[in-house]
Amino acid sequence: MSTIELAPRLSADGFRQELFTRGLLFATGVDGLYGRSATFESLVDAVDRLIGRLSADDKAEIMRFPPIMTRSGFEASGYFKNMPQLVGTVHCFCGDDREHKRVLACTPEEGGWTAAQQPADVVLTPASCYPVYPIIAARGRLPEEGWLVDSSSYCFRREPSIDPARMQMFRQREQVCFGTPERIRAFQSHWMSRALEMFRLMGLPATTDLANDPFFGRPGLLMANGQRSQRLKFEILVPISDPDRLSACGSFNYHVHHFADAYGISGADGEAAHTGCAGFGLERVALALLRQHGFDIEAWPEAVRTTLWPRA
Amino acid sequence: MSTIELAPRLSADGFRQELFTRGLLFATGVDGLYGRSATFESLVDAVDRLIGRLSADDKAEIMRFPPIMTRSGFEASGYFKNMPQLVGTVHCFCGDDREHKRVLACTPEEGGWTAAQQPADVVLTPASCYPVYPIIAARGRLPEEGWLVDSSSYCFRREPSIDPARMQMFRQREQVCFGTPERIRAFQSHWMSRALEMFRLMGLPATTDLANDPFFGRPGLLMANGQRSQRLKFEILVPISDPDRLSACGSFNYHVHHFADAYGISGADGEAAHTGCAGFGLERVALALLRQHGFDIEAWPEAVRTTLWPRA
Repeated sequence: MSTIELAPRLSADGFRQELFTRGLLFATGVDGLYGRSATFESLVDAVDRLIGRLSADDKAEIMRFPPIMTRSGFEASGYFKNMPQLVGTVHCFCGDDREHKRVLACTPEEGGWTAAQQPADVVLTPASCYPVYPIIAARGRLPEEGWLVDSSSYCFRREPSIDPARMQMFRQREQVCFGTPERIRAFQSHWMSRALEMFRLMGLPATTDLANDPFFGRPGLLMANGQRSQRLKFEILVPISDPDRLSACGSFNYHVHHFADAYGISGADGEAAHTGCAGFGLERVALALLRQHGFDIEAWPEAVRTTLWPRA
Repeated sequence: MSTIELAPRLSADGFRQELFTRGLLFATGVDGLYGRSATFESLVDAVDRLIGRLSADDKAEIMRFPPIMTRSGFEASGYFKNMPQLVGTVHCFCGDDREHKRVLACTPEEGGWTAAQQPADVVLTPASCYPVYPIIAARGRLPEEGWLVDSSSYCFRREPSIDPARMQMFRQREQVCFGTPERIRAFQSHWMSRALEMFRLMGLPATTDLANDPFFGRPGLLMANGQRSQRLKFEILVPISDPDRLSACGSFNYHVHHFADAYGISGADGEAAHTGCAGFGLERVALALLRQHGFDIEAWPEAVRTTLWPRA
């Protein structure tokens, strides 16, 4: 772990208040759900482009997704089995005039106007790599050298919090790698180094560490331990809301053949492929920059500004 | 209505197939839900920036939103009363280990794993102007001259269709105007002229026409007639999928004091403000460009390319 230089010592609550007072984020009344100002968006955009420049030579296939995915693709992933508390399903009204009239008259105890909502064939996307797997699977066996996708989407996680770094909807930019175990391990370790260099260029005091997903319930503890002991998940961490605690801004994951089995993704030899992903939470990186360098972007260190907004 | 020059005469189905075959959109197995390629995104981005350049002098306040909004803000709008068939509500799992185990064992007849999903305090955003109203209302009375917001978000409409121009999730860029009836009518008419000019610059054979929202059921007919007779809604139309039919790429709406009453938005004089919006469906404009000028963007007319990608 490298040394951490602490950002200006505003409390977590003070930092949150400043984001609203200065109009960087717009409060909505629901924790974790915010509108974004032009300034905040320009930061998210700059971070997104920086990731694109640092990985341009990888020649990944670019895929961008809307924030919902197919229910069948979601079900195959096993996500609801592992992290049901984070899931958002999409429900619709399929009734006629009469049914409409009925639900409009429903009391809150009867379920109110949502009383007749039925699960649709789509769900909110939990991570931007999930819609990628069915598309790659449908193409048949991978080429000999494997494949690389650069994906991005808004993602949903049901974890309301007053911490602005824990949003219910946020954007992920995620690289997804398909191939042999050696290729995935090399991809994972390459992205960890690259991410540390990227955060150094942004003037952010980042470290990487072993991590685990927030698996649900008692059986989840076992899964978390397994994930750690196999060194499958690493995160890149910086202080954001609370200057004394670290928040993950990205993760570097080796899925072994979990997704290949789930979606039927085969390598050139016909065996289940191995997969991995390296993703960044763009809002979190933008917030980390504000926390570290302050709210006056014009006054940020010149080297940081040139990294984010290089002269053409 | 101006004369319509027809785009290359590919059938609607042929056009759709080309979008997939050429890798511009990625099929997901759900109609109206597609991944986007780098090329398609570059078109959406260029259209978005063009709208920004054409309206830069308006000095609107920029707000960008994630694709969900608060349920309370959505309920105030009356949208479910008017267009329940288009709504997507978000539902979550709030149970414990035992409940989780129970729903994982539910048969499809029992509702499967979604059996215990409960409505959350958020819903999918139906139009990018909806999250704006509660924010403006919370600020108190409008300034004397009114207010102008430039909003954008992914939006959801439950209308699965094989027509690629009818997506379930698509991006809207929408200007929202608050003020006197005179200001809103001037805003509406100014944006109709500006949109026609914008489409002319993009080489698209656009027309504008009176329109109505797809109000639900029998009472909806009455509302649609009222909207038309008061000339509250206009659309800008171009051929997209079917070369012989027109699709709306944008709309210009005068809400009278509907939203001001719904959200409590007052003018400088304390009376309910009037509101209007002018919005574009970015994916539709991108598709209209492909339909009109063909799939080889390098070969598009130089004037169109310069409009979309001006030299710095």
